[in-house]
Amino acid sequence: MAPPYQRHLFVCTNRRPDGSPKGCCASKGSDDLRLAFKKELDAQQVGSVRANTAGCLDACERGPAVVVYPDNVWYGPITAHDVKEIVSSHFKAGVVVERLVMKLPIERKKP
Amino acid sequence: MAPPYQRHLFVCTNRRPDGSPKGCCASKGSDDLRLAFKKELDAQQVGSVRANTAGCLDACERGPAVVVYPDNVWYGPITAHDVKEIVSSHFKAGVVVERLVMKLPIERKKP
Repeated sequence: MAPPYQRHLFVCTNRRPDGSPKGCCASKGSDDLRLAFKKELDAQQVGSVRANTAGCLDACERGPAVVVYPDNVWYGPITAHDVKEIVSSHFKAGVVVERLVMKLPIERKKP
Repeated sequence: MAPPYQRHLFVCTNRRPDGSPKGCCASKGSDDLRLAFKKELDAQQVGSVRANTAGCLDACERGPAVVVYPDNVWYGPITAHDVKEIVSSHFKAGVVVERLVMKLPIERKKP
C-alpha cells in the first residue's frame, strides 16, 4: 500500500529508561499493540489504513498512545484488546470509539 | 508540547539493508532531516508543530519522505536545505510548498 492513505495510524513505540516518572509507551506494550493493529487490519481486510510506529508523541502519561490522521483522533491508554473494536468501528464504519479517546489536553506542572 | 498539535510532521527514518532496490529514507539522510526540522521549528518559534520519527511510510522511491497531518500533505524527496522554506511557508503562513510536494500515487509493477 502506497500513500496517500484513507487513514494513517501512528503508534508511539518510544522507550524511556526504566524508572522514568513519565513512563513510556514501549514499557506499556506498544510494540505488541502495533502488531495487533496490523494483524486486525489484515483480518478485517482494511487495505486503506496504514499502521506505523512513531517516536514519542508526548502523551506518555496516557499511553500506550496512538493517533489517527487525518481525523486527528487520539486514543489512549489502549491495549491490544481494544484493537478489534477500533478497526471495525472507526476504520471500517467511520465511527470513533469515544470511550477510548484520550483525555486532552494533558495538564502538566511547569518545573 | 502535548497533543493535540496544530500540525504533526512525521519523518520516515526507516533503514533497509544496503543494496535494497527500493532504497530507504535513512540512507538518504532522513535522521539529519528530522533534526533540521526540529532546529528550524525552534528557530522560527513554531511551537504548535511536532516533528516525529516514523517507521516506513512506504514512499521509499520518493524519499526522504515526510507527511504533514492533518493537512495530509506529503513532501519528498526533500533535503535539509528545504526545511527552512517548509517551516516558514507551510507551518507559519499556511501555504504548502507545491514544488516539493511528492508525486502521488506511486505506481508499482506487481511482482
